[in-house]
Amino acid sequence: MLDYRRTHNCGALRKEDVNKTITLSGWVHRRRDHGGLIFIDLRDRFGLTQIVFDPVKNPKAHSIAEKSRSEWVIAIKGIVINRQEGMTNSKLDTGDIEVRVDDIEVLSQAKTPPFSISDDNIEVNEELRLKYRYLDMRRGDVTKKLVVRHKVMITTRHFLDQQGFLEIATPILAKSTPEGARDYLVPSRVHPGTFYALPQSPQIFKQLLMVSGMDRYFQIAQCFRDEDLRADRQPEFTQIDMEMSFGKPEDIMSIIEGLLKNIFKACQNRDITTPFRRLSHKICMEKYGCDRPDLRFGMELHCIDEVAKQSDFTVFLDQLREGGTVKGLCVKGGADISRRTIDEYTEFVGRLGVKGLAWMKMQEGALNSSIVKFFSDDIQKLLIKILNVEEGDLIFFIADAPARTNQALDHLRRKIARDRQLVDPNRYEFLWVTDFPLFNWDEDEKRLQSEHHPFTSPNLEDLHLIDTEPLKMRSSGYDIVLNGYEIGGGSQRIHNSELQQKIFECLNLAPKELEERFGFFLEALSYGTPPHLGIALGLDRLVMILTQTDNIRDVIAFPKTQKASDLMMECPSHVDPKQLKELHIASTDTEFSWT
Amino acid sequence: MLDYRRTHNCGALRKEDVNKTITLSGWVHRRRDHGGLIFIDLRDRFGLTQIVFDPVKNPKAHSIAEKSRSEWVIAIKGIVINRQEGMTNSKLDTGDIEVRVDDIEVLSQAKTPPFSISDDNIEVNEELRLKYRYLDMRRGDVTKKLVVRHKVMITTRHFLDQQGFLEIATPILAKSTPEGARDYLVPSRVHPGTFYALPQSPQIFKQLLMVSGMDRYFQIAQCFRDEDLRADRQPEFTQIDMEMSFGKPEDIMSIIEGLLKNIFKACQNRDITTPFRRLSHKICMEKYGCDRPDLRFGMELHCIDEVAKQSDFTVFLDQLREGGTVKGLCVKGGADISRRTIDEYTEFVGRLGVKGLAWMKMQEGALNSSIVKFFSDDIQKLLIKILNVEEGDLIFFIADAPARTNQALDHLRRKIARDRQLVDPNRYEFLWVTDFPLFNWDEDEKRLQSEHHPFTSPNLEDLHLIDTEPLKMRSSGYDIVLNGYEIGGGSQRIHNSELQQKIFECLNLAPKELEERFGFFLEALSYGTPPHLGIALGLDRLVMILTQTDNIRDVIAFPKTQKASDLMMECPSHVDPKQLKELHIASTDTEFSWT
Repeated sequence: MLDYRRTHNCGALRKEDVNKTITLSGWVHRRRDHGGLIFIDLRDRFGLTQIVFDPVKNPKAHSIAEKSRSEWVIAIKGIVINRQEGMTNSKLDTGDIEVRVDDIEVLSQAKTPPFSISDDNIEVNEELRLKYRYLDMRRGDVTKKLVVRHKVMITTRHFLDQQGFLEIATPILAKSTPEGARDYLVPSRVHPGTFYALPQSPQIFKQLLMVSGMDRYFQIAQCFRDEDLRADRQPEFTQIDMEMSFGKPEDIMSIIEGLLKNIFKACQNRDITTPFRRLSHKICMEKYGCDRPDLRFGMELHCIDEVAKQSDFTVFLDQLREGGTVKGLCVKGGADISRRTIDEYTEFVGRLGVKGLAWMKMQEGALNSSIVKFFSDDIQKLLIKILNVEEGDLIFFIADAPARTNQALDHLRRKIARDRQLVDPNRYEFLWVTDFPLFNWDEDEKRLQSEHHPFTSPNLEDLHLIDTEPLKMRSSGYDIVLNGYEIGGGSQRIHNSELQQKIFECLNLAPKELEERFGFFLEALSYGTPPHLGIALGLDRLVMILTQTDNIRDVIAFPKTQKASDLMMECPSHVDPKQLKELHIASTDTEFSWT
Repeated sequence: MLDYRRTHNCGALRKEDVNKTITLSGWVHRRRDHGGLIFIDLRDRFGLTQIVFDPVKNPKAHSIAEKSRSEWVIAIKGIVINRQEGMTNSKLDTGDIEVRVDDIEVLSQAKTPPFSISDDNIEVNEELRLKYRYLDMRRGDVTKKLVVRHKVMITTRHFLDQQGFLEIATPILAKSTPEGARDYLVPSRVHPGTFYALPQSPQIFKQLLMVSGMDRYFQIAQCFRDEDLRADRQPEFTQIDMEMSFGKPEDIMSIIEGLLKNIFKACQNRDITTPFRRLSHKICMEKYGCDRPDLRFGMELHCIDEVAKQSDFTVFLDQLREGGTVKGLCVKGGADISRRTIDEYTEFVGRLGVKGLAWMKMQEGALNSSIVKFFSDDIQKLLIKILNVEEGDLIFFIADAPARTNQALDHLRRKIARDRQLVDPNRYEFLWVTDFPLFNWDEDEKRLQSEHHPFTSPNLEDLHLIDTEPLKMRSSGYDIVLNGYEIGGGSQRIHNSELQQKIFECLNLAPKELEERFGFFLEALSYGTPPHLGIALGLDRLVMILTQTDNIRDVIAFPKTQKASDLMMECPSHVDPKQLKELHIASTDTEFSWT
């Protein structure tokens, strides 16, 4: 019986290996009978190698090859030979050679798979692919992304270890955390009526590690949120989670810059430029209408309130009177945009709640549009200057409440960039966004709410505003943005228990809730807490960007659907009533069934 | 305001740093007023540095130092100076120098901790230490163990990456697994009446990764078992989990040997000898009475059935007649063991269900004991030869059912080794145990049960026994044992779906149960599965051995008690009834309360 242990993988053999006797094992990818000779493309995750069976030289092996089918697993022993002139395949790493088989062993037969594994171009329904995830992975695409994910993780760990960070695992069986999303609960068998919660993040644990003097912590942490899933969310997701003592934001920024430099070098052999750009939250909102702008293209927003005031355009004037704003953006060369497309854009921003989209084109040295007449020559000159309008450009304006205006222009800006292919998929534009507001106003609950989380330190320069104008306070938070995606965020934390207590009071938490949820944490802070700060990067998103996919399920080995189901395992599932009894719980509703 | 960012940590400064201006930050460990001068031992996880405040040279800093208390967090700036002659402290890495402080900043004050952090010798109640885990960690002992844990993990990842293994995370929200212990369940909000289970191991997922062609997988995986905890168990525990395709047991053994070689080098700068010893399960049971023998000392067991048969000792003869066995061990130099100690040992094995402990001492060239008269001279000679008895030795015998005899002698052997200090704590004796039985007999359920798990391949040489004598079949499993602890185990897996089906049938699983639990897995195996095999090492146990502790809570940052509670977080805890309603469950019993 042939020993199936390989001398090479299926992507390894080259011209230099000719005349070597080798053993390969793998899957039958394609088999071709060429009048006598049988050719098999043998596949593993490293590549394909062509192996050849000659009925004259080795009839026994040939007859076995004849019976083999797609996806059978075989081992072969043979000699590497040069492919015949004209038969080489430059698309294949192993395309210069083939293997003349002397011995073959069938290791596993295979049923016909529910979809083709050999043809990458066939579109297969995602549900079917998820049900047969183990077969979908053989198609290579997911595998390649998981290799990138592995590289990101190993690079992260190596780099952070060198920077003095210790990887420390925090509990999965934890307590309800203050992140605000819904928790997954785990009933306790030993303590009837009580529950663990799966952590939404290791936030409290990592801060306690700083209280405990661990100095620098990191973890590639599984986190859990029981939310109705958007396309790019999963019930369990992964964070590169860090915390350090005795540092300031510029320290963690520079560590993250070093980390990402290493990751891009390892995964793409690309040198990214550091330090990254930094913009305050305020400037971001002004220039891009959002706090995670894609900087791979221009089209910055400009406020024209002062100019609009002097116009006769009542749409603008009405909005300004009601506390609204007027902002515009300039599409370079956009004068070629048709009326029909402009109508589409108007509808597009309309779906975001904006009533109208004003526009002007710069053609033959003058602004043209049905509304130009409401703007005097001087005002037109001001617009041209502010928006840097040149011949052939188009400008769009939105006048509405500030938040809605920003949101609509942000979406419009990105849509136009996609439509006009202004986005270079091979460019990576990093950005730090800083000086976020500390609080926002929760209109439903009529109370302040933390913009990040309640452990975020205020910018100490703004502390005097805490009792009078808390909404004007800036935090010491920082987000990192890549190509329009927030890939991480963090902050300097509050390390003083009185200030932490004060912030909790600002949030108007009931004393009982405060005590129950954060009492022990406030106490922990009171035993001598070092200044500390941290960050968490979204690993899934980072790998998605590195592998250029918009589907989070592509970068997770065994993902769940948007309904939080694992179609392969058929999970969640019904359990034995005995189990529930032991856990002191009963199902109150059992309408769901897989069958 | 002094910038608290450090130039050095508290364990770093040496003679070579004298005259440097430095910044340190840390905790006030001890403060001593020496008539004017104030000395503070400043602490962080790296060490202690003595800092000095001079009331004449810097009255302002001195007066702040005067007010500071234990566990306050301070930053200081100062100049490194040599300690005065006679004042150096060779026990301290920084003991040659001290820092003359020019500037001090109090970063955090501290309440008086519930137990002393500065005195390592004080025994503190473990419950109190767990409640204030973040303070307990400051005492240094846990921190040092977590550093070792980090080193084990980083070394493991680096080594396995180099060996071509990809780290791939498998789901935590998974389906009930076949490991047999109780699952932790997570109710699904989206699918009423159904549950996820937290994985007891990634077994099925890692085998599916092999089906999918990932070739080599590893993960440092969190696993969960809802069991009544023994002292060395935790509800969540960590495995170094691996699987590879197209390999045989010797391949994985050699990878694990390389891995452990690297780990011991990294953590202890120790060169361990590879390859490790190998013993079959049968030989292990014969020589040590257990399948995880501690090889740091001798005292092997010897079966004397053939000799005992020829004696007149009815105790032995009766046992042999009833299918029992007689085994003995020789304690070198044990003739000095007192009657009282022998009585204690008799009681000790009695608690393990054994009725008596026979003994003989070799003194003045002859065996002595009240039972020697039942053994003729020739038989005594045989005993002396079999057990290699020399002058001054003592031999113990137990006659009972084979399993009970082995168990009692195993315990006795280890107890004697501890009592007589035969165990060198600085020795590491690794052992592979192979050729386990494939099945054992479950007397309660009257059916075969897998010795490891049902995916373990039989030793193919024994396949012919499957229908006739399945209990005689050996598996292809292998355990790795270190100093008497099983630190890991694995096996060649079944890669043929028919054989897997056959094994399930041997286990007498009901067709419905089989289909529900393993149906999808049998199907997965049928699409072309490579030969594959794997192993899982217990990370917690490995770190315990490396850090010489018997308390698993010492090697976990935030451990749980034996009642599966986190005393610091007060978790598990009651939750809002609204949450349960959303999850379609109700508590049936709510007697427990933290307050």
